[in-house]
Amino acid sequence: TLDHRDTQRACVTALSSDSEGARLSFARKDTFLKVHKYFLFSGDKVIPVFLSQCRECHFCKSPKTNQCVKAWTEVIMDIMCPIDSRFSCKGKKILQFSGLGTFTEYTVVRQINLAKIHPDAPLDKVCLIGCGICTGYGSAVNTAKVEEGSTCAVFGLGAVGLAAVMGCKAAGAKRIIAVDTNPEKFEKAKIFGATDFVNPKDHSKPIHEVLVEMTNGGVDFSLECVGNASVMESALHSTVKAWGVSVIVGYTLVQSFTARPVDLISGRTWKGALFGGFKAKDGVMEMVKRYMEKKLMVDEFITHNMDLCQIMEAVELMKKAKW
Amino acid sequence: TLDHRDTQRACVTALSSDSEGARLSFARKDTFLKVHKYFLFSGDKVIPVFLSQCRECHFCKSPKTNQCVKAWTEVIMDIMCPIDSRFSCKGKKILQFSGLGTFTEYTVVRQINLAKIHPDAPLDKVCLIGCGICTGYGSAVNTAKVEEGSTCAVFGLGAVGLAAVMGCKAAGAKRIIAVDTNPEKFEKAKIFGATDFVNPKDHSKPIHEVLVEMTNGGVDFSLECVGNASVMESALHSTVKAWGVSVIVGYTLVQSFTARPVDLISGRTWKGALFGGFKAKDGVMEMVKRYMEKKLMVDEFITHNMDLCQIMEAVELMKKAKW
Repeated sequence: TLDHRDTQRACVTALSSDSEGARLSFARKDTFLKVHKYFLFSGDKVIPVFLSQCRECHFCKSPKTNQCVKAWTEVIMDIMCPIDSRFSCKGKKILQFSGLGTFTEYTVVRQINLAKIHPDAPLDKVCLIGCGICTGYGSAVNTAKVEEGSTCAVFGLGAVGLAAVMGCKAAGAKRIIAVDTNPEKFEKAKIFGATDFVNPKDHSKPIHEVLVEMTNGGVDFSLECVGNASVMESALHSTVKAWGVSVIVGYTLVQSFTARPVDLISGRTWKGALFGGFKAKDGVMEMVKRYMEKKLMVDEFITHNMDLCQIMEAVELMKKAKW
Repeated sequence: TLDHRDTQRACVTALSSDSEGARLSFARKDTFLKVHKYFLFSGDKVIPVFLSQCRECHFCKSPKTNQCVKAWTEVIMDIMCPIDSRFSCKGKKILQFSGLGTFTEYTVVRQINLAKIHPDAPLDKVCLIGCGICTGYGSAVNTAKVEEGSTCAVFGLGAVGLAAVMGCKAAGAKRIIAVDTNPEKFEKAKIFGATDFVNPKDHSKPIHEVLVEMTNGGVDFSLECVGNASVMESALHSTVKAWGVSVIVGYTLVQSFTARPVDLISGRTWKGALFGGFKAKDGVMEMVKRYMEKKLMVDEFITHNMDLCQIMEAVELMKKAKW
């Protein structure tokens, strides 16, 4: 992906455009047998997840992490695709984005990357749970461990950031400050639970100073959902010394972040997670269940329903933030 | 302090050379009354602590932090002294190091910086608890929250690092890897509980790669007790992805640390604390109690007993790491 900053959101778009694809079929009998062990059958409704859950490695067996040693991210994270693609075209290898490659009518994935979901779940909606919603929501609930009555700041109001706002609200945050340079997103953020809105373009001083003043010392939790190193630094500095927790949710491989030791020594914690800290299969299954029980908003994320052949048009809409 | 890297250890030395000074006297009646509220009387044995504990601010009232809004570090951390010194010489202000200035026979400090200790406690020993021992020990126990059966790495084996080794051991760590470029310190580290010793000078590859290989993926917890940004980065990279926790214990104002977002997104946590996360007064009182009950090593830190007039000689010994 040349324009790296778009990769995370592109992933969401990919899944959301893939409304017909998430039904399972098997190419080989041995695959069937292996999958059968986990109660998957041909025709089951599934959601493909870029992170695997093999249930057998020491990471999968630990409640402390959602990492899996069989994840392609274990081998390589310097590009957004594993190098062992299952596809080629005219003899040339085609990489599968995030190990899935869901911008296709059919794809081939490992069973450890498939979450079986409720047979009544609407695929054209719950597909969003397979990346952006879990990533944002889980970053608030699982990684930051947002506390009841706390004050939070969410930087960036794409699908991931909106889901983070929803996670903060679910965790009982009293005040949720939504930060974005596009004020058109504030209306949507309000639906998910944001209470305050800050556009960095409206202020001449650094945005973390604005937040520290607004909150009399800094927020308890901040979540960076952009994938920009300087925003990650702002998000850290927006938290209150003493107990502030800042979570890096956005992804970038082209930048590094920098801070002074005293920024952490004064009591702050800087952390991050893939996929919002959710175990890949368990998390998706649980979140789909919550949606079916009307305890989780999903429909509210959807602005367009487009066919796969309109994919380039969809990407352009996303780049222009038309929603 | 010109040679910044020495400030933290100098602080310990200052206190340890101050064996006669830690008895309380009051200059003014109003001071007495205020102190009286906290059961301090003239003649009490006390340990001065650079961090305050006023017991009244929202930080002091929270169990989540040991910060205090009345601490001088709240106002300024860009120099190692508060600017409102109580001393002058020939009309020129003399700064009090860490707000205490204990390289004197007499000093003037705020009551919120004094921890009252057991009347039988030997001042020439327990004075060490007032800085280095709490900082290192607490960083393992309170900040990293080292877990039973875990693997830890401690970078730097000065007083703070040795206390961190002792903290890891007290928390039940199974394996404690002590890292220092001076192998003479390994014998001492062993006394405090270190099980493995690594001298970065013995290896051509980066030290974090050595540790990751030694531990089949990285340590669970790492503690940087040097005050060097590149060592802080090594300490982070030495931890296992998925759940590694790295704590910045050493202090530097002249350097910044840098890392890639993926270093945290892969599941690591980077944090820090002042004074090992101990509430200033409560922590010192508790640690002195543990020493009196023979549950905490203190005598083992002492290599020399020197008079205050030998202070420059003591500083030279420290610089040469003669112990």
